[in-house]
Amino acid sequence: MASVRIREAKEGDCGDILRLILELAEFEKLSDQVKISEEALRADGFGDNPFYHCLVAEILPAPGKLLGQGIGSKIIKKVAEVALDKGCSQFRLAVLDWNQRAMDLYKALGAQDLTEAEGWHFFCFQGEATRKLAGK
Amino acid sequence: MASVRIREAKEGDCGDILRLILELAEFEKLSDQVKISEEALRADGFGDNPFYHCLVAEILPAPGKLLGQGIGSKIIKKVAEVALDKGCSQFRLAVLDWNQRAMDLYKALGAQDLTEAEGWHFFCFQGEATRKLAGK
Repeated sequence: MASVRIREAKEGDCGDILRLILELAEFEKLSDQVKISEEALRADGFGDNPFYHCLVAEILPAPGKLLGQGIGSKIIKKVAEVALDKGCSQFRLAVLDWNQRAMDLYKALGAQDLTEAEGWHFFCFQGEATRKLAGK
Repeated sequence: MASVRIREAKEGDCGDILRLILELAEFEKLSDQVKISEEALRADGFGDNPFYHCLVAEILPAPGKLLGQGIGSKIIKKVAEVALDKGCSQFRLAVLDWNQRAMDLYKALGAQDLTEAEGWHFFCFQGEATRKLAGK
């Protein structure tokens, strides 16, 4: 079993965070949608009123396969702790419907699929639609 | 046509915001899920690092039926302006799949249904699941 330490991200992690975002997007077959830069990650996450918060899992040592080591569960448990500390009554994740492994994990940990159960859909205004709406 | 002014919410609006949240939840047949109080709305939205931002549409005067007056479009256009000002590359909405009127409006304004197009699902850890995960 790998030894895992979960901590808050620091500004110096942004290069690694970008690399992991790109690897996740490749897995999700959505690489063409990633337009974020390391500079934007630094500006958005580490200013006075950050747009996002990020946890990092440090894995020491990391021999062989990482799947099945419980790292995902540990991160989600940490997110639950942070959520309670901040006074949140719930927290949500977005998952692609073909990512069975992720959906099985979230359900096993107690999550409910609100799209399946209640019919919630994500609607997105992309860049061009946003600029057109704003008249820019 | 009603005259509409859209402005940022003030702390004093929280009573009206709560009333509108409750009316929306009733329309969505999800009233049992609303556990928010006016005090929590004040604390979460008007502290140093607010959890949410809110726009208010003031309608003067408001005779008769409000549906079909273009108020929804005006609010979404304002959200697009705010998104661009803040450096966002996109913005998202959550909508119930039987709320055809809302989905038609969002599509007409240029939104894409990411649940339909790419298979994104909302997963939610509710309060009890969150507390169990955090061991509390």
